Amino acid sequence: MAIAGPPGAKDRSSTRRANLSLILNLLHGEGGRSRARIAADTGLPKATVTNLIAELMEGGLVREGGAEREGAVGRPGQVVELDGRALCGVGVEINVDYVSVIALDLPGDVVAQRRLAVDVASTPAEAVLDTVGQLVAETMAELASSGVRTIGVTLAAPGVIDPVRGMVTYASNIGWREVAAVDGLRRRLGRSAPEIHLENDAKLGAIAEFVTTDTPGVRDLVYLTGATGVGAGIIASGKLLRGNAGFAGEVGHLPLGDPEQDCPCGRRGCWETAVGLAALLRLAADRDDEVHDPSVDVEQRLSELRRRAEARDERTLAALDTLARSLGAGVALLVDILNPRLLVLGGHFAVFGAYLVDAVRDHVRDTVIAPDAGGCELVPSVLGFTAPARGGAYLALDAVYQDPIAIMQLTQS
Amino acid sequence: MAIAGPPGAKDRSSTRRANLSLILNLLHGEGGRSRARIAADTGLPKATVTNLIAELMEGGLVREGGAEREGAVGRPGQVVELDGRALCGVGVEINVDYVSVIALDLPGDVVAQRRLAVDVASTPAEAVLDTVGQLVAETMAELASSGVRTIGVTLAAPGVIDPVRGMVTYASNIGWREVAAVDGLRRRLGRSAPEIHLENDAKLGAIAEFVTTDTPGVRDLVYLTGATGVGAGIIASGKLLRGNAGFAGEVGHLPLGDPEQDCPCGRRGCWETAVGLAALLRLAADRDDEVHDPSVDVEQRLSELRRRAEARDERTLAALDTLARSLGAGVALLVDILNPRLLVLGGHFAVFGAYLVDAVRDHVRDTVIAPDAGGCELVPSVLGFTAPARGGAYLALDAVYQDPIAIMQLTQS
Repeated sequence: MAIAGPPGAKDRSSTRRANLSLILNLLHGEGGRSRARIAADTGLPKATVTNLIAELMEGGLVREGGAEREGAVGRPGQVVELDGRALCGVGVEINVDYVSVIALDLPGDVVAQRRLAVDVASTPAEAVLDTVGQLVAETMAELASSGVRTIGVTLAAPGVIDPVRGMVTYASNIGWREVAAVDGLRRRLGRSAPEIHLENDAKLGAIAEFVTTDTPGVRDLVYLTGATGVGAGIIASGKLLRGNAGFAGEVGHLPLGDPEQDCPCGRRGCWETAVGLAALLRLAADRDDEVHDPSVDVEQRLSELRRRAEARDERTLAALDTLARSLGAGVALLVDILNPRLLVLGGHFAVFGAYLVDAVRDHVRDTVIAPDAGGCELVPSVLGFTAPARGGAYLALDAVYQDPIAIMQLTQS
Repeated sequence: MAIAGPPGAKDRSSTRRANLSLILNLLHGEGGRSRARIAADTGLPKATVTNLIAELMEGGLVREGGAEREGAVGRPGQVVELDGRALCGVGVEINVDYVSVIALDLPGDVVAQRRLAVDVASTPAEAVLDTVGQLVAETMAELASSGVRTIGVTLAAPGVIDPVRGMVTYASNIGWREVAAVDGLRRRLGRSAPEIHLENDAKLGAIAEFVTTDTPGVRDLVYLTGATGVGAGIIASGKLLRGNAGFAGEVGHLPLGDPEQDCPCGRRGCWETAVGLAALLRLAADRDDEVHDPSVDVEQRLSELRRRAEARDERTLAALDTLARSLGAGVALLVDILNPRLLVLGGHFAVFGAYLVDAVRDHVRDTVIAPDAGGCELVPSVLGFTAPARGGAYLALDAVYQDPIAIMQLTQS
């Protein structure tokens, strides 16, 4: 049965790994504390904790902090806190209008960031991978020069991906089909290449939002990318929902748009033809308007549109109203099916949050069958267009929490 | 971070509980085996295994079997296998047209079954709970007379429920709103009442299908109830997806039906007005046709319709075609969002599987964005209308796997 069965028993070295991981997770999730409190909080013997902390300290993953301030019984102990400023995870997002790179250290702070306007759909995939390789190599070199080692890279792609083979299976908006992205990047980085993984942009955005949310007690979250394509990343009971083969969250082509509108995927009436970035630009401005210029960074073009909305430009506001209606229909559907605690609107939905959120929230409240929309709160992302790359960096860093031993061996080699 | 963090460290008694649970889950999932193999498979010391098995045997949860046949090194040991025939879990389904009870012993065999045609929507909730109480009490008494103890009861209701308060919040098709079902049943069972829980029918159906599926390696499954109401039960990565407040899977009122069709919920165009049992009956037969008679058991009425379909009755076949189209639209949407390995059609969808599955499968293959429908297989349930009650019984039994100590204390008291 094992609907919620226990994990298997462990051998000795996996126990050590699990205990190191347990301590790191504790320090990350709950903050620094004394060895005595770590022993109390984990249930591990004090001598074991002392040994494990020494090992983590030598590996650069934790460090001594100040004296323990509160909640301590007896003589205050010295705090041990998360370190890991000498290592980082890198996330790279390839999207329709740009390529961006972000590097986070173990505590989650941004230590490097790069972004380039690229008309990806009109550029051969190999040339895009050249650009990606260059951006990642530059970022890693910059970090290395200040003593920071990159332990892993995660690529985010806007479409259907195969994480096992590292292939972008099908991303209609950038015209990629069966592109070996992971192998391509590994070849370009050469001998210095760290672990490289590939994941869908929406899934990585969901991870970033889940890790950084201020809302307490969130275990179920849906993140909606807002770019030319629209995808959902789903966190269920605190874990990323990938589905049988990694395709969960493919909402961009649900038949929720105008049945006459052509989609680059070959279908008609896909949801992203009604709520994607292209739809917003089409509704808000004529073809020769500057906001359609793919050589200008997308955030700049959206700032222009936002300026128009703030100036109460009628066409812009009407476009946002139309978009809000189509957005509401899909969001309500996701809330009915997934009952998330948080639904986070990313990308351009977040840029225009002030013009969209109220209308979408009203629609959700009126149509979702669960009382009070099942307790779902609708919020614009505060991570903007960086959420997928950030999620990629977090995922790369997760290797540290999962297997501190391997990472310490790596950083010492 | 802990995107997939390790579980917390355990104290001694919770370690014993976890190890007992580990052994029971092993015997249930992988079948009986010798103490030596149990030690090898769990990584526990042989002496510990011997003690734990003695404890489980005394508690009636395992028993000695024959000699070990295959895969054993050296002298064949005696097999220890799951017992638990002296205890059972009970599931009760309350639906529009019937109330049914099913009892399963620990190995999952049916040890009692009862079913009554009840026009639940036209009967006061208290009178329905009287019937439920009577059916459950009779079943428990029958089992007790052959020495089988009921360790828990799970109620399945067709709608939005609050598992914490044990309330049916809102079930439009039976007209229940804020009905205290768990307290009501507990009061009727009096001092002999075991643990009672409440869950949505689709979620319990999903558990039953997940536990009993023959398809190897299924971790992601969607079960669709087919009755007057339509709901989805979702298993993601081997665990029931409940969502933030237990409302996940509320698909019956998605706007996928004819926008002019009224729904008992007060909306129009809900999916269940196009694919629910009432829709099928409305499409297939005039109001005065015998298949509309609520005093006749629903399975009997569906048998009559199936007989007509087999006789190639035009109206019946046209009704099934229409239903298949609407069903395909919703199923494709669920496959895009959840990427299940299996999508199981329950209730009347299963009864008419031969007339529905091919058309729905074609629609899914043509519209789902993932290649090869993301590996999703579409199957009619073989559990028929018993899936929700069975799932309830499994959930009641899961308490044994989660905490064998508590159950053994209970059965010995």
